[in-house]
Amino acid sequence: MAAVAHAIGRSERIAPLPRARPNIVLFLVDDLGWQDASVPMHSERTPFNDRYRTPNLEKLAARGVRFTNAYASAPVCTPTRTAIMTGKAPARTHITYWTLNKDTDTSRPRDDVAAPDWAVNGLQPGDHETLPAILRSAGYRTIHVGKAHFGAHGTPGGDPTSLGFDVNIAGHASGGPASYYGLQHFTVAGRQGKPPHETSSVWDIPGLEVYHGHDIYLTEALAIEASRAIRDAVDAGVPFFMNFAPYAVHAPIMGNKKYEPNYPDLDDRERAYASMIETYDVALGALVTTLEETGQLENTVIIFSSDNGGLSAHARGKAPDGQTRHTHNAPLKSGKGSAYEGGTRVPTIIAWPGVTDSLQADARSIDTPIISHDFFPTIIGLAGLQADLGPDRGSEIDGRDLSPLLTGRPQLFDADRVLGWNQPHQWGADGPGIRPFTSIRRGDWKLIYFHAGRRFELYNLAADLGEASDLAAEDPDRVAELAGVMEAWIERTGAQLSIDKTTGEEIERPGVAARSWIDQHATSGAGSTP
Amino acid sequence: MAAVAHAIGRSERIAPLPRARPNIVLFLVDDLGWQDASVPMHSERTPFNDRYRTPNLEKLAARGVRFTNAYASAPVCTPTRTAIMTGKAPARTHITYWTLNKDTDTSRPRDDVAAPDWAVNGLQPGDHETLPAILRSAGYRTIHVGKAHFGAHGTPGGDPTSLGFDVNIAGHASGGPASYYGLQHFTVAGRQGKPPHETSSVWDIPGLEVYHGHDIYLTEALAIEASRAIRDAVDAGVPFFMNFAPYAVHAPIMGNKKYEPNYPDLDDRERAYASMIETYDVALGALVTTLEETGQLENTVIIFSSDNGGLSAHARGKAPDGQTRHTHNAPLKSGKGSAYEGGTRVPTIIAWPGVTDSLQADARSIDTPIISHDFFPTIIGLAGLQADLGPDRGSEIDGRDLSPLLTGRPQLFDADRVLGWNQPHQWGADGPGIRPFTSIRRGDWKLIYFHAGRRFELYNLAADLGEASDLAAEDPDRVAELAGVMEAWIERTGAQLSIDKTTGEEIERPGVAARSWIDQHATSGAGSTP
Repeated sequence: MAAVAHAIGRSERIAPLPRARPNIVLFLVDDLGWQDASVPMHSERTPFNDRYRTPNLEKLAARGVRFTNAYASAPVCTPTRTAIMTGKAPARTHITYWTLNKDTDTSRPRDDVAAPDWAVNGLQPGDHETLPAILRSAGYRTIHVGKAHFGAHGTPGGDPTSLGFDVNIAGHASGGPASYYGLQHFTVAGRQGKPPHETSSVWDIPGLEVYHGHDIYLTEALAIEASRAIRDAVDAGVPFFMNFAPYAVHAPIMGNKKYEPNYPDLDDRERAYASMIETYDVALGALVTTLEETGQLENTVIIFSSDNGGLSAHARGKAPDGQTRHTHNAPLKSGKGSAYEGGTRVPTIIAWPGVTDSLQADARSIDTPIISHDFFPTIIGLAGLQADLGPDRGSEIDGRDLSPLLTGRPQLFDADRVLGWNQPHQWGADGPGIRPFTSIRRGDWKLIYFHAGRRFELYNLAADLGEASDLAAEDPDRVAELAGVMEAWIERTGAQLSIDKTTGEEIERPGVAARSWIDQHATSGAGSTP
Repeated sequence: MAAVAHAIGRSERIAPLPRARPNIVLFLVDDLGWQDASVPMHSERTPFNDRYRTPNLEKLAARGVRFTNAYASAPVCTPTRTAIMTGKAPARTHITYWTLNKDTDTSRPRDDVAAPDWAVNGLQPGDHETLPAILRSAGYRTIHVGKAHFGAHGTPGGDPTSLGFDVNIAGHASGGPASYYGLQHFTVAGRQGKPPHETSSVWDIPGLEVYHGHDIYLTEALAIEASRAIRDAVDAGVPFFMNFAPYAVHAPIMGNKKYEPNYPDLDDRERAYASMIETYDVALGALVTTLEETGQLENTVIIFSSDNGGLSAHARGKAPDGQTRHTHNAPLKSGKGSAYEGGTRVPTIIAWPGVTDSLQADARSIDTPIISHDFFPTIIGLAGLQADLGPDRGSEIDGRDLSPLLTGRPQLFDADRVLGWNQPHQWGADGPGIRPFTSIRRGDWKLIYFHAGRRFELYNLAADLGEASDLAAEDPDRVAELAGVMEAWIERTGAQLSIDKTTGEEIERPGVAARSWIDQHATSGAGSTP
């Protein structure tokens, strides 16, 4: 596969390599939408960019590269997080939805289609080689901080240390925090105003007992612990990989009162959300400070991203354009859980000292589509381990080494590759595109196959970023062509589609389904579009 | 001495003793004035009590005893702090002023009198038996957190671990913080808006590197570290003594933005000060939470106090009564550095689970005068070590075991003992009573001997808490009598008086000086007062 060729061949093409074995910090904010920063991820600034305050991310962007077409591997958390850990698309691992308790399917039931027999326990030791295990075997200290959400409660994968992490700070099998407040002990009971340990909940944050009763925000506590872990690694003289995942800005929307006064013009809920955003940014700044003070900043690659699109279903406040609900990722459509761009497009910035900061300005904003599981071979390459990624391993890896893009040699990267998403599940909330689906993007074109009703939608993202004009009916040839590409992608990854509840069988593959759909819906004959 | 008799005899008088070897937390706020809490320390609530928010201190008071006549050992920091560590009045140790650098006298020069040859290096290992060393030898883990200020920079005593502490968190030889803000790295350079390590300063806080770059307040960082140290001790199964001294509310007055919005009616500086007060209270609550979670609350004695009166010289804002400067301890006169009550009277609450919480309400507010160095024999007694305090040691100890007062048996405590203060130094700021002095209190009467000019002032604190009516001229017999008592106290403690710069000799002892003063100033003949 091309991905492997990139990974293996990198050191031959790109020279000189910076210092061997840099530290790597993956700063993975939760549910962070494409617009949830003051750094523009769109070709132009938006009202959201002006609303939020993320000066530390701006500084990171100033010495890094900014990806305007970066995607999460999935519209919800666990699939993306495990894709990063394995380098494999969720379609391949069958970890296609978020996990919680052992042997329990969290998919919301529907009348027409059901989830397939997916990996309801998430990532488990031995199932796949994991990024931290590979790095650890190469001498890295591997540190997880914050939300893990790799495997289910009651399974080994619920504990990040079973998956290759040397250190686990506050990570477990749950994907959201009971509370962001140390005064509430980060527990459900505390949030309900009861004695914080009166009842226990799977959502209670583990391992931060030292912060119980202190008036501190969860993101801040995690950042302090991360600073401590970084200092410990530096003191020990070992390179480190840190997966910093601050739970925020996942629901519940609970403000940080230090920053809320910075947003006097917003309503209470939006003010709280904006303060959560500012808090992650301050945490980023604090980690950079730690790296500076320990003399490691110039030897540390920082990757900033999100695990899925921003939550739009629960937003109560008004977007800058005056619309409510599902506009929180504008100009993108919909949000977390959706097949539309708002569900998967995420802010992504990578700063590689001595490399990205020496690029020309026009090479610092990259339009090439990338996807979360690209971080796997990229990080392995950064660690100088490309030779270890042999064909036997590489044949299973869907991610591609991003180093050509990071080093200003985009011509060495396959910009026209097919990216695919597969979520044969109904997410909990209602909203545009929040339905079981498979989708692919190739170039500017995106085809969505909605499993229930076997419906297709086609968008040209270059012309129609907001997915307002579905072109499927007027461009059946392209639907047919891309349905074939999608089918090939399904074959290649082993993706599972939804189960038709009437027949008990998997629904039709997109090639077959597209032919039926075109017969019924196409407004023009075959060949009407070039 | 009576102090020793109390200490040695305690177990015979007071039974049953609660669980052996309780943990002990001394929560010693810096420069905290008598009115700097919502808990009233006066016989009635004051406007300051209504201004400030200290709900956790209120809870502590609800299960503890409140001392309305508690005094610091001195009007400035080092003397009180070392008096607690040694059980000896500053007059006895000759540590009568605050220390900073080795062999350097920090006293402000005056034209008329000079400081004597005092212990400019502060407390040094081997000079005196220290409280933590005694507790450590009995199996306690001894933990210092925050401001130490025991000995000078460049001397062993500058490091708390040289004085018997097993653990030192952020303590050194300086008595004030460069900055309260983690974003400024707690350094002078950071506070000045420069790169935080561009210059170094003796005021920079050591040992909190993990918090650099984080948006956290110093008191909060110290409280988190304290919680960690408590948990470590509990995990190790050892009792602990913690000297928690949060630097705050010492200058610089720098607000905690989380709490500033709670004080909309105050001016900027008073709002910042109020937020510093609320922050110490939240820290107290957090330590109580840690004790609760570790199952230690019922086995931990908490002593809450301050090291001297509240700063009044620098206050710019108006007091509730509309006056400015030196009214920040109203109804007391003046503040830190002064011979008047505002300089030394401090809030003090002690909660001894199973003991103070079982007292009748009328025994919970204690008017008996006490002084900081009483904590030394009290804590040693609490640790079950009274038998170790033999006469040879005891003869040097000025503090008295407070357990009779804590157990509701005030008749066993000598309420009429003489308390003395001796500060043969000019403090840096100007203000009422901020001059070299010696003073004593016996019963309701207080005599002050101001060294420059050999002046005497006499107050009846029962009738005149605010020291508005100096009775010395109209009651020369009492001046003469108390001058004799003062002289005896000077003899007993070995107090050093100021040096007359004209003669180069120590000034007259109060007995001689009082006779001269009475001859010149008395408005009535001997015997005019009973």
